[in-house]
Amino acid sequence: MNRYTYDEIRVGQTESFEVKITGQMLDDFRGMTGDTNPLHSDVGYAEAEGYEDRVAYGMLTASFMSTLAGVYIPGERSLIKELKIKFAKPVYPGDAITVEGEVKEKNDTFNMVVLKVTMRNDKGDKVLRGSMDILVR
Amino acid sequence: MNRYTYDEIRVGQTESFEVKITGQMLDDFRGMTGDTNPLHSDVGYAEAEGYEDRVAYGMLTASFMSTLAGVYIPGERSLIKELKIKFAKPVYPGDAITVEGEVKEKNDTFNMVVLKVTMRNDKGDKVLRGSMDILVR
Repeated sequence: MNRYTYDEIRVGQTESFEVKITGQMLDDFRGMTGDTNPLHSDVGYAEAEGYEDRVAYGMLTASFMSTLAGVYIPGERSLIKELKIKFAKPVYPGDAITVEGEVKEKNDTFNMVVLKVTMRNDKGDKVLRGSMDILVR
Repeated sequence: MNRYTYDEIRVGQTESFEVKITGQMLDDFRGMTGDTNPLHSDVGYAEAEGYEDRVAYGMLTASFMSTLAGVYIPGERSLIKELKIKFAKPVYPGDAITVEGEVKEKNDTFNMVVLKVTMRNDKGDKVLRGSMDILVR
């Protein structure tokens, strides 16, 4: 786990990691949230709707923004204040997602950094774009 | 599960449900995401940082926006396009969170609804404010 202080963080700094989305994660997310939408649990339904497989919950993919902030940048001192998320392409079980954050701004008044977030699948397609305002404790 | 069509949805319509945040959910979210930040796993650490207990992951609380869209409004035909999330207060294990969505806009060109999201704890304090742009399939 990184432990960057506010002063140690530079505009332009990037951190990234890879995560494999599994069918078990979709099942666990359904169990936790109660989101029983068949697009995420029923392959036949998802295929009939034009998808390759059941579709990962957008908010499951987005949940790795928590890891990006809380473990990578800034790491331990992270406190997420707000986020914006746009879903660009469907994510499927088996996809390996690269999660990248780049520091776009620093706000000295609030010890706040603005992180631009990009997630790509194995093919290099962007699946999620977002930003986070993170207070560095 | 609700199955509202785009035409059935009215501006001003609301849906809500309650969910209890448990310590087990925090543990499960850590296992799923790999976000090992001690603020969410170590009571002593969290208390030393000024919190009442270990703090629920913001993205765990936010994940119930998935349930709001995918089960309640519009329900089955939901496809979340983008979201904005602001965290207002910490959420703790044991908190009962009321999740409410209100339709603010309809965009007939894209069959898109804009949902305002408010989450409150047992004391009535707002813990999360957000919005979602949802395509109704």
